[in-house]
Amino acid sequence: MGLFTKDIKTMNDLFVHQLQDIYYAEQQLTKALPKMADKATDPQLKQGFLTHLEETRQHVKRLEEVFKMHGAQVKAVDCPAIDGIIEEADETAGEVADKAVLDAALINAAQAAEHYEIVRYGSLIAWAKQLGRTDCANVLAKTLEEEKATDKKLTALAESKVNLRAAS
Amino acid sequence: MGLFTKDIKTMNDLFVHQLQDIYYAEQQLTKALPKMADKATDPQLKQGFLTHLEETRQHVKRLEEVFKMHGAQVKAVDCPAIDGIIEEADETAGEVADKAVLDAALINAAQAAEHYEIVRYGSLIAWAKQLGRTDCANVLAKTLEEEKATDKKLTALAESKVNLRAAS
Repeated sequence: MGLFTKDIKTMNDLFVHQLQDIYYAEQQLTKALPKMADKATDPQLKQGFLTHLEETRQHVKRLEEVFKMHGAQVKAVDCPAIDGIIEEADETAGEVADKAVLDAALINAAQAAEHYEIVRYGSLIAWAKQLGRTDCANVLAKTLEEEKATDKKLTALAESKVNLRAAS
Repeated sequence: MGLFTKDIKTMNDLFVHQLQDIYYAEQQLTKALPKMADKATDPQLKQGFLTHLEETRQHVKRLEEVFKMHGAQVKAVDCPAIDGIIEEADETAGEVADKAVLDAALINAAQAAEHYEIVRYGSLIAWAKQLGRTDCANVLAKTLEEEKATDKKLTALAESKVNLRAAS
C-alpha cells in the first residue's frame, strides 16, 4: 500500500490489507515471545509463553494458507500497533527490579498483544464472511479461539498465583 | 520512570506506572476520537464516537480521582502502544478511498483502542484489589464497563449495517 495513494478501494482490499498487517504482527510475536519466556520467573508462565510461541508459528502458517486460499500474495505490511505494544512491553519490563512483579508485568504485556490479535481476527472473520469466504473465516476462527484461550489462561495464572506473589 | 533505573520495585510501583500509562492513553484518545467522528460517514457511528469522546473525558477525570485516592502524583508517561494503535488507525484510514469501507476500517481501529484499554483496566483492577485498594478498583471498574459496552456497540454496528454496506 503506497503513501497518499488510497489503495484500499473495496472491502476485499481492506481484508487483504488486514491479513498483511496481522501477518507482520504474528511474525513479530514469534520474535518477542522467546524473550518474554526468558524473562519470566514463574515456571508455568515461562512454559505458557513457549507453548504460545509454538501456536504463534502455526498462526503464521495459517495466514499463509488464507492468503493462498484467497488468491492473494503472501505479504506483510508494517503494523505500528504491534510494534508499539512490544516496545511498551520491553520498556516496562526493563524498569521492573523485582522478579515476581516482573511476572505480573509480563502477563499484562502479553494480554495487550492477545487482545490486539483478538480484535483483528474478529474483524477479519466478520469481513471474510461478508465477502462469502467462509473457508477463510473457518481457518482464521481456529487462531482466534487459541488467542482467546491464551488470554484466559494468562488471567487465571495472574489471579491464582502471580499477582499474589507480586504483592507479597 | 527513568531509563535503565529499574524504578518499579513493588506491585504498588507497577500499579502507579500503569495508571500513568493509561492516563496518557485516555488523553491521546480524547484527541483521536473527534478526528474519527469527522471521518465517519454512518451517522450512528459518528454519534457513537462523539458519545465515547464524552465518556473518555470522564475516564480522564476518574483516573485523576484514583491518583488522588491512592496518594500518587497525577502524571502521564508515554505509552508507545496507544501511539502505535492511533498511528495505525490514521495510516489505514488514509489509504481507504471508499466511504463505506472507511467506516468498517474505523470500527476496527476503534476496537483495537477499546481492547487495549480493556486489558489495562482489567490488570489495574486486579492489582488494586491485591493491594487492598477496593476503593480504587471500584472507580476503575466503572470505566472498564463503559469500554466493554462501547466495544460491544461497535461490533453490533459493524455486523448489523457497516460491513454489509462496505461489501456491497
